[in-house]
Amino acid sequence: MKTLSADSQSDKYAQAYHYIADRIDRGEWGAHDKLPSVRILAQELGMHRLTVFRAYQMLKQNGIVYVKEKSGYYVSPSAKQGADPFETQANRPVPSSNRLSNSMASIQQKTADYQLSQALIDPNLLPNAYLSEYVKRVFDLYPKMIGTYSTPQGDQELRESLCTHISRQFGIPVTAEAMTITTGAQQAIDLLARIFVRPLDAVLIERPTYSAAIDIFRQHGARFLPVEIGPDGYDLERVQELMERCRPKLFYLNPTFHNPTGFTVPAANRKRLVELAERYRCLLIEDDVFHDMYFGQPPPPPLYAYDTEGWVVYLRSFSKYVAPGLRICGVIGSKAVTEQLAIAKALADNGTPLVNQKLFLHYFQSERMIQHIEKLRTALQLRRDVMEAELAGTGWQWSSPNGGLNLWIRLPDSLDGSRLLEESLRQSVSFVPGEICDPLGQMKSFIRLSFSYMNEIHIKEGIRRLREAASKGMDSDR
Amino acid sequence: MKTLSADSQSDKYAQAYHYIADRIDRGEWGAHDKLPSVRILAQELGMHRLTVFRAYQMLKQNGIVYVKEKSGYYVSPSAKQGADPFETQANRPVPSSNRLSNSMASIQQKTADYQLSQALIDPNLLPNAYLSEYVKRVFDLYPKMIGTYSTPQGDQELRESLCTHISRQFGIPVTAEAMTITTGAQQAIDLLARIFVRPLDAVLIERPTYSAAIDIFRQHGARFLPVEIGPDGYDLERVQELMERCRPKLFYLNPTFHNPTGFTVPAANRKRLVELAERYRCLLIEDDVFHDMYFGQPPPPPLYAYDTEGWVVYLRSFSKYVAPGLRICGVIGSKAVTEQLAIAKALADNGTPLVNQKLFLHYFQSERMIQHIEKLRTALQLRRDVMEAELAGTGWQWSSPNGGLNLWIRLPDSLDGSRLLEESLRQSVSFVPGEICDPLGQMKSFIRLSFSYMNEIHIKEGIRRLREAASKGMDSDR
Repeated sequence: MKTLSADSQSDKYAQAYHYIADRIDRGEWGAHDKLPSVRILAQELGMHRLTVFRAYQMLKQNGIVYVKEKSGYYVSPSAKQGADPFETQANRPVPSSNRLSNSMASIQQKTADYQLSQALIDPNLLPNAYLSEYVKRVFDLYPKMIGTYSTPQGDQELRESLCTHISRQFGIPVTAEAMTITTGAQQAIDLLARIFVRPLDAVLIERPTYSAAIDIFRQHGARFLPVEIGPDGYDLERVQELMERCRPKLFYLNPTFHNPTGFTVPAANRKRLVELAERYRCLLIEDDVFHDMYFGQPPPPPLYAYDTEGWVVYLRSFSKYVAPGLRICGVIGSKAVTEQLAIAKALADNGTPLVNQKLFLHYFQSERMIQHIEKLRTALQLRRDVMEAELAGTGWQWSSPNGGLNLWIRLPDSLDGSRLLEESLRQSVSFVPGEICDPLGQMKSFIRLSFSYMNEIHIKEGIRRLREAASKGMDSDR
Repeated sequence: MKTLSADSQSDKYAQAYHYIADRIDRGEWGAHDKLPSVRILAQELGMHRLTVFRAYQMLKQNGIVYVKEKSGYYVSPSAKQGADPFETQANRPVPSSNRLSNSMASIQQKTADYQLSQALIDPNLLPNAYLSEYVKRVFDLYPKMIGTYSTPQGDQELRESLCTHISRQFGIPVTAEAMTITTGAQQAIDLLARIFVRPLDAVLIERPTYSAAIDIFRQHGARFLPVEIGPDGYDLERVQELMERCRPKLFYLNPTFHNPTGFTVPAANRKRLVELAERYRCLLIEDDVFHDMYFGQPPPPPLYAYDTEGWVVYLRSFSKYVAPGLRICGVIGSKAVTEQLAIAKALADNGTPLVNQKLFLHYFQSERMIQHIEKLRTALQLRRDVMEAELAGTGWQWSSPNGGLNLWIRLPDSLDGSRLLEESLRQSVSFVPGEICDPLGQMKSFIRLSFSYMNEIHIKEGIRRLREAASKGMDSDR
């Protein structure tokens, strides 16, 4: 393990510096406050006095503290920024907190009758009555299920069943040992970020992408290197250049019926990307949520199927179009990744509840499941068609998706997605403005419309109202 | 928001320093490697060149990099530590990861017939058959439950029900708006750590305490200030001194049937602690898992009941002794805490599955629930009595707990808890050695024995074997 060499001392130095600067920033130590002595602080932080002394010297150089002869260090008045933004608001008697944000939640909180913002399957398309009947049988099978914890890695029986399915689907061997069960794909992304991302780490991310992933990686301090996704996949010259120059730790991507664009990365592009990842030792986190939601041909196999050296972590969220409320995702990775995931999962919530895993397992294995998926594809395709027909004549542009739940639409330049949302919410229509899907926060003339959550009648009325809102938006621009 | 004053520049400076040192530490840049120029790195990190230049200067001073005239910065040979411990092991083709650990999991993974390590209710003590019947009715009530997501804050109906219960129990008003539902108390601790703890933040923690809490706070970089817990509660002089001197951000504590000691902090001690927290603006995170598991008199009201200014966050894990597999915890906090929790929860897993919340809600409201709790108390007390009787004559010391699931035992000085565990696992008996419950990693002559998971017959046999293992351990010491 580590010895106290020059290097880990310097690390401590930065920590001490940050420790002091941070508290001044938060207003815990105010202008002209006397700061703890080098001796006291060194003792408190368990550091060498010289380390703390150097940190104070640098703080002095940077004008954050000043020195009074024979007295000690004091906070410079210029260093004080006013309190933390979290603390200055009324009714906030709590310690300063880390800055978390969640852009999608702020949109989904708006009430709207026509929720074109929800990339979820309409609960009316799910076999609810059948499932309710089914549940009782599962409880009879595992009478102690409600009193038992799962292991952090997840129920063995469920992992075996999901792995068998994946093995058959793609003709590759996958064993239950390589899989971890998480509470939805989003938890998997969060745990992987927690394991691998440190502040300022370079992270490749699609542009646009799943907005919650942006929020999660950002919270862990990632520095984004955006990669555009198009109908032909990624510009791999660009990816290679970024990998070569910035040595990113990981690439979070959703190459199949991509959210929000609906694009599917072609097989050749997938294969070459995996080769690049192996060459540059960049972990590919492949989020594959909508694999079975195709409207014509099935999509190419996942990146994971091309991986021979363990550089792909495969997130397969099965419950999303079967029983989304159960929140079951299977994560497949190398031994090293799986070991780390088990620890992170144990710390985060000690394992996805067994009830959810067993309920999903038995439904997943049933005959009914296959029929359901086929019917669901047809229903979604129909809804896509209705939405596209209603949008005809708007002049708005999109590529018709061959799967997934969304249309990614380019508005005329005169229309701004966020402003359109304000207007359309007044008409009780919600959708997702493009800018929250963009790691750069641009893409203001794009919007995401989900055709999966509302039925045909509501889609028609929703689009009618949206068009009305758009024409108002254009009027007010004149 | 923030302007680019001296202070936030200095923050960037520390970041740049750490960024470079970290990569050298991880072996991404090896000895004598040429480092990126100031210009390139400034561009890459989006920082001012002067900031990066200063970071390089300090790295040079610390002997981590050296300069070649007219060429640039290079990695000093002495700076290279060998690769990251995570990367040097075989079969680890993954990027370097953050160091996570989970001491309890490594114990629970051991197979043992006599699991005195499990502080869980024996599933045989739960009304499984009744619950299985019940489930079907709940599914009939909410046919679309399995297809629906919960809000991140949690199901309104469940929150109202739990808050009504708490209001009645302690005679204090609590509204559903103040409560967040998490997947078990452990997730609540993790989310709160994520919100409030930054590296090197001082955190008060009981000694001993719940080992997962140690792992979680440590992972977030907390600097522990341990506070001993005894039969009379905390030494509040000591707490005040620590609050005064170190300004800790929070105090994680479990004052009722404390895990692992079983102690309950007296009412007067609670009241004064809350006053201290208010005075020193230190958040009290009160973990109240076993409140209703008393064997004689009910315990005093929680700290939360004494709180008037919002400095207590109250974690009430209800499902633990009713339906532990459902993993339902209610977290009550001030408006500011609850807002932050909703964001953190949305990022972590987007909300506890609705199924679990609705199943728990209806069981919680049923007549059967009250009867169950009463029977469970009697059953646990009986098991405690059996375990204590079997331990008579060992010379081991403990305070008989008036509630909870554990005995906290002091072994003779000649016995070491971890070494006893090695020996007892050979006899198929597991328990928790004291050192993993100690934030300082000491307490080697203490062990935690749980009487909740095994029935009376297994407790007897388990303790018989444990005594045998102990006598072997003492023999080998001679």
